Amino acid sequence: MAHDIPAILETVRTFVREQLYPLEPRFLSQPLRELMPVLEERRQQVRRLGLWAPHIPREEGGAGLALPAFARVSEELGRTPLGHYVFGCQAPDVGNMELLLRHGTPAQRERYLSPLIRGEIRSCFAMTEPGRAGSNPVWLETTARRDGGHYVIRGRKWFASAADGAAFAIVMAVTDADAKPHRRASQILVPTDTPGWTLVRNIPVMGHAGEGYFSHGEIELADCRVPVENRLGEEGSGFQLAQERLGPGRIHHAMRWIGVAERALDLHCARAASRELRPGVPLGSRQSVQHDIADSRAEIDAARLLVLDTAERLEAEGGQGARVRISLIKFYVAGVLDRVLDRAVQAHGALGLTDDTVLGSMWRHERAARIYDGPDEVHKSVVARQVLKGYGVDVEV
Amino acid sequence: MAHDIPAILETVRTFVREQLYPLEPRFLSQPLRELMPVLEERRQQVRRLGLWAPHIPREEGGAGLALPAFARVSEELGRTPLGHYVFGCQAPDVGNMELLLRHGTPAQRERYLSPLIRGEIRSCFAMTEPGRAGSNPVWLETTARRDGGHYVIRGRKWFASAADGAAFAIVMAVTDADAKPHRRASQILVPTDTPGWTLVRNIPVMGHAGEGYFSHGEIELADCRVPVENRLGEEGSGFQLAQERLGPGRIHHAMRWIGVAERALDLHCARAASRELRPGVPLGSRQSVQHDIADSRAEIDAARLLVLDTAERLEAEGGQGARVRISLIKFYVAGVLDRVLDRAVQAHGALGLTDDTVLGSMWRHERAARIYDGPDEVHKSVVARQVLKGYGVDVEV
Amino acid sequence: MAHDIPAILETVRTFVREQLYPLEPRFLSQPLRELMPVLEERRQQVRRLGLWAPHIPREEGGAGLALPAFARVSEELGRTPLGHYVFGCQAPDVGNMELLLRHGTPAQRERYLSPLIRGEIRSCFAMTEPGRAGSNPVWLETTARRDGGHYVIRGRKWFASAADGAAFAIVMAVTDADAKPHRRASQILVPTDTPGWTLVRNIPVMGHAGEGYFSHGEIELADCRVPVENRLGEEGSGFQLAQERLGPGRIHHAMRWIGVAERALDLHCARAASRELRPGVPLGSRQSVQHDIADSRAEIDAARLLVLDTAERLEAEGGQGARVRISLIKFYVAGVLDRVLDRAVQAHGALGLTDDTVLGSMWRHERAARIYDGPDEVHKSVVARQVLKGYGVDVEV
Amino acid sequence: MAHDIPAILETVRTFVREQLYPLEPRFLSQPLRELMPVLEERRQQVRRLGLWAPHIPREEGGAGLALPAFARVSEELGRTPLGHYVFGCQAPDVGNMELLLRHGTPAQRERYLSPLIRGEIRSCFAMTEPGRAGSNPVWLETTARRDGGHYVIRGRKWFASAADGAAFAIVMAVTDADAKPHRRASQILVPTDTPGWTLVRNIPVMGHAGEGYFSHGEIELADCRVPVENRLGEEGSGFQLAQERLGPGRIHHAMRWIGVAERALDLHCARAASRELRPGVPLGSRQSVQHDIADSRAEIDAARLLVLDTAERLEAEGGQGARVRISLIKFYVAGVLDRVLDRAVQAHGALGLTDDTVLGSMWRHERAARIYDGPDEVHKSVVARQVLKGYGVDVEV
Repeated sequence: MAHDIPAILETVRTFVREQLYPLEPRFLSQPLRELMPVLEERRQQVRRLGLWAPHIPREEGGAGLALPAFARVSEELGRTPLGHYVFGCQAPDVGNMELLLRHGTPAQRERYLSPLIRGEIRSCFAMTEPGRAGSNPVWLETTARRDGGHYVIRGRKWFASAADGAAFAIVMAVTDADAKPHRRASQILVPTDTPGWTLVRNIPVMGHAGEGYFSHGEIELADCRVPVENRLGEEGSGFQLAQERLGPGRIHHAMRWIGVAERALDLHCARAASRELRPGVPLGSRQSVQHDIADSRAEIDAARLLVLDTAERLEAEGGQGARVRISLIKFYVAGVLDRVLDRAVQAHGALGLTDDTVLGSMWRHERAARIYDGPDEVHKSVVARQVLKGYGVDVEV
Repeated sequence: MAHDIPAILETVRTFVREQLYPLEPRFLSQPLRELMPVLEERRQQVRRLGLWAPHIPREEGGAGLALPAFARVSEELGRTPLGHYVFGCQAPDVGNMELLLRHGTPAQRERYLSPLIRGEIRSCFAMTEPGRAGSNPVWLETTARRDGGHYVIRGRKWFASAADGAAFAIVMAVTDADAKPHRRASQILVPTDTPGWTLVRNIPVMGHAGEGYFSHGEIELADCRVPVENRLGEEGSGFQLAQERLGPGRIHHAMRWIGVAERALDLHCARAASRELRPGVPLGSRQSVQHDIADSRAEIDAARLLVLDTAERLEAEGGQGARVRISLIKFYVAGVLDRVLDRAVQAHGALGLTDDTVLGSMWRHERAARIYDGPDEVHKSVVARQVLKGYGVDVEV
Repeated sequence: MAHDIPAILETVRTFVREQLYPLEPRFLSQPLRELMPVLEERRQQVRRLGLWAPHIPREEGGAGLALPAFARVSEELGRTPLGHYVFGCQAPDVGNMELLLRHGTPAQRERYLSPLIRGEIRSCFAMTEPGRAGSNPVWLETTARRDGGHYVIRGRKWFASAADGAAFAIVMAVTDADAKPHRRASQILVPTDTPGWTLVRNIPVMGHAGEGYFSHGEIELADCRVPVENRLGEEGSGFQLAQERLGPGRIHHAMRWIGVAERALDLHCARAASRELRPGVPLGSRQSVQHDIADSRAEIDAARLLVLDTAERLEAEGGQGARVRISLIKFYVAGVLDRVLDRAVQAHGALGLTDDTVLGSMWRHERAARIYDGPDEVHKSVVARQVLKGYGVDVEV
Repeated sequence: MAHDIPAILETVRTFVREQLYPLEPRFLSQPLRELMPVLEERRQQVRRLGLWAPHIPREEGGAGLALPAFARVSEELGRTPLGHYVFGCQAPDVGNMELLLRHGTPAQRERYLSPLIRGEIRSCFAMTEPGRAGSNPVWLETTARRDGGHYVIRGRKWFASAADGAAFAIVMAVTDADAKPHRRASQILVPTDTPGWTLVRNIPVMGHAGEGYFSHGEIELADCRVPVENRLGEEGSGFQLAQERLGPGRIHHAMRWIGVAERALDLHCARAASRELRPGVPLGSRQSVQHDIADSRAEIDAARLLVLDTAERLEAEGGQGARVRISLIKFYVAGVLDRVLDRAVQAHGALGLTDDTVLGSMWRHERAARIYDGPDEVHKSVVARQVLKGYGVDVEV
């Protein structure tokens, strides 16, 4: 049965506004664990609406939306930091689900994927290392040494988002140091109760270590032994799987960013309309405020069309065909988000720096958008390299 | 019969590249009059291709493309300064044709519109005045005094593009100074051989006065008498017609700008691929060049989608529905064009400043994009005003 | 005896690097109260160096530096969030000291100024109100009603920095609502143990409410009674005193910002030199990193010269002569700081988002620079207004 | 006798305003040759004022100003395109004079330098080549083959400013292709009546080929024979002399740019004050115009201080000590100039695109500032390299 996308979007929009916005003040001021019961209630409501795990095929327990439709849902969810979690499509679980759907063995799917889709457990993705540049994903220190039917994994990871409380991790580790750079690493499923696995700390980010789902872990892997059967895909395919994970992942991120940007502009406009400079003179009467609003409106509209167009190409042509665009939307939308948030903060004055609105939190946490998944600088060079190939040269990036 | 748009675009693209690019060096170095014969030949070729006046209905003598299709053609034509002229859809004639199509009396259509569509004559649009801010279109000095069955027009206009050689002008003049601001002016057809009409000069723009079609005239109207029947639409409708003219006009302009930007990026990339910094090291190996190319690629792609989406809305909802977007694409695409051209010039080094390529000419002449049709600052405020109405306030702009 | 400024700067620089940098990790991770004993030790060291309260005349208990010299010291102190506090010249106390030095009665000076200079007590400045735009300082809700020999103060203030633990506040309150806008308010000394004074909360800013000196208070004044003798200067002079306070205060702020920016660039360069993209290839080999470093180097150098030049003008000509420059450095240096911090964060990648360096904290807290003391937008208009007076017009701002 | 610098500046300022501004309309609209007689008259006036060749020692026939003082004069002259020419300190002659003063033999000085200082002849500097990147000055195609007591020079140069009408050129040519890159070239004096020297064309720049002093030549050197005695300095010192020429040359350029920027801001403000948006409402009442003026005011003030500070360092420490700053002011001031001109054009609307003011000409011709003397990108990397050396790494640029 085909989806009625406009109706779904309206349902999501209303739910987000009525059920999630009111939780934000508690999210900004209370420990997450105090909020967990109500978040679980909201998840139940979403399940009853038939919108749980919207990106997952129906036969696997999701709502079965195709990428372009999920992209639009993702925008709606992005308007609040709680959206994706409550709908069961939060990163990094969403990417891990996609990997397991495509490459998991039946045993891996049963043990790891099914409870993940149902929202009974959470997971994390452990690739980035503190000692190695994130912009060079083929240069890793963590090794998975083969020992009979097991891998013995040793190394240190960080910025493993949501590691705190995760049931398992997908770990990138070098399985053959002598292979060509792009064939050195494999992805391995590691339950977090494996001996040798230590969550060293939740990294203090922007002033807070966070907790549970909303955290970024630093992980010590001290000779963690896991069966060879825990490897995802063939040996040496780690980098390739990581790339594959990125395609739809970028769409998800970019559309979530559009949602964040729309929320920021919404707050920006509401402020411009309600704040008075003197009796009867709203802030929005200032030309500098008007121009900021217009610039944000234009940039968001253009960015959305670019991401949706990319989602359609990705759906139609696959990751290879849309490769340049996948890199392009990364830096382009991250840049738009950055500027839109900055303008909204400026219009709020001192209030924009506080946690009395969700804006300040968005401003500081979304600064990461220009950095994670490869810094913008790398993606710009990737795009240029592809473009210049059409002019007969292959430049280094 | 439906159009095969992709085939048309391919035809136009090839024609532009093979028949028009080679004329550019002459365009940049010779008086226009020496180029006119070959331009007329090219126009004949276009007529034979069945692509003459692509925006005009077939029954009127054009190729009959709808706005979104013509927008794409306009991009292809915009890649060279000669494109629109050779295809019979050059501004300001294209806007004047649209006005006459919608509001011309049978007599006006026969005398002015038909030869205009056929490319036998040219026209101009005389609205802007040297003494009055272009950003305030309801504040005009030029008057059309009623004297029996005639209007007697007196005033001074400038930046009447292509006035040199035009057979007639559409002149904005105040017909009732006591009416409400938006009802004061009317649009009147004035043959340029009317006594009292003087082309004072072609204004030197960016170092050149230009000539013929490629010029911007300053006009003296010293009691020009024209019959009342020369008025377009009803008395007092001048401002409204001007606004109406702007909707599709913006799409044409914006898509032409996209074409200019694509050409600039094309030259940019070709330069990055071919220019060597030292033996074997192309300019494109520099990260700053790569990032500039990537930024331009992203911004053009986003801008095109925004304009095409606006063209579709305008086609579907009309000018009122797309009003915000019409203002929004004006400043947004003008900004993209400005940055794309600047980056391409920078990559060309000293060559970019010369007339050895078409780039320098584009860079300096398209600076006007941020100014004409209302400066960007005005359009940003218009957008903000509309946006803020949705938040319950009506701010001044 | 004249100061040996270069020697003082070298002493301060060394002290900051050796005695204060090592405290930063604790500052970023522990409650402030646990750090207070060691900060008090450092203050003692500074007193022994003869550098305590560097901006205060020697006869009043300070080190007696003139404004241009103190400006340079302020830069050195700004390299760490702890600098100004440890040297006894922290805002807002520094501004309050200046006000009391110039306008305090002997009784006010004895009770409030002397212990403040000695560092025995702290103070705050309560002007901004949650319900009124900070950009319009003559529009206040807080009133001070005369009742015999007392003022009865009622209102709500926020962003009273360091209110938590302050012994007294200088409160801006309307003493004559019928006076001309700039003569409505007065500044009144209010001990924080006055009945009716409540520190409602430390406002959560950038994720943290903070505590003690490092906090921003929201204050309820519920009919606080203080003697009329607590008024600073004459009745109605509140706005004028606030303006007067701003002149040197801008220099202090701006030079502190230069110090923050220098620290950020220092971290930026150290990162570029030490971080490897692959073996033997430092981050600094990337052109985008090089260009960011060069831009920051240039912008900081230019900004410093501008502030020092302004300090010299202010010393030579007084606040009126340097008025445009005082507004000009506000927005100009705040802008430089913003960009320098952003570039340094970007070069740090994920590390720049953590609290493992002081950079992230600087990045998020110094965002306020573009907002406090009047948002940049207001200062730009003030500058333009002054400039345009020289062209014969007096424009509204 | 010491100079009274403020008095000199006032004299120059008045002369520029009263004697040169009025010539600008003719400069913009007439062939240069028609203007030459009046320019020669103005030169005579300058000689009578004792300000001819202000940068040249008195004993050599100049006014004897030190670099910081000449820098300030250069700003005043930069306010009009005619300034430096009329005062006998126009590029490239000014740099050629400095080279000959420092490295010329008595015979070279008598034949080339003396008439150059007196303004009887003009010269050019032929370094840049069409086929080689200007950013790599050690990679040249032009060769000077030794043949007995002569050099035989062969090659092609372009952007040799003012070559049209020059009496001689200083030509960079490879004298030893096997030497280390920085020792390959020498500088050789070549009279333009040497057989084999051809001015192929004045390059059309920004729409105009120009003529005489105001032109940029493309030169063919077809086996030009000149005596070995025409070499400047020792063989292989060409690159070193070119670098040496750049130090003071950058100060001259940068201060001229400051002058251009001040003139643009002056026109910007005059326009903002006089242009009405509607009766009684000046353009300067718009916040966007105000902010542009304030940004330009701040950026020019900061840039001037940076250049003057660099001039003082260069005077005190020589080229090596000020090397980073010399690169830094190149890109920094060029960037400021670019933005200031763009804002001024925008405020002028359509008028800013015309040649009815000097602004449009400045806008298009000063675009070159970001390109010549090494593109900004190169200088930024040079600055970063020097800065990073202080952090223990030597990165490639």
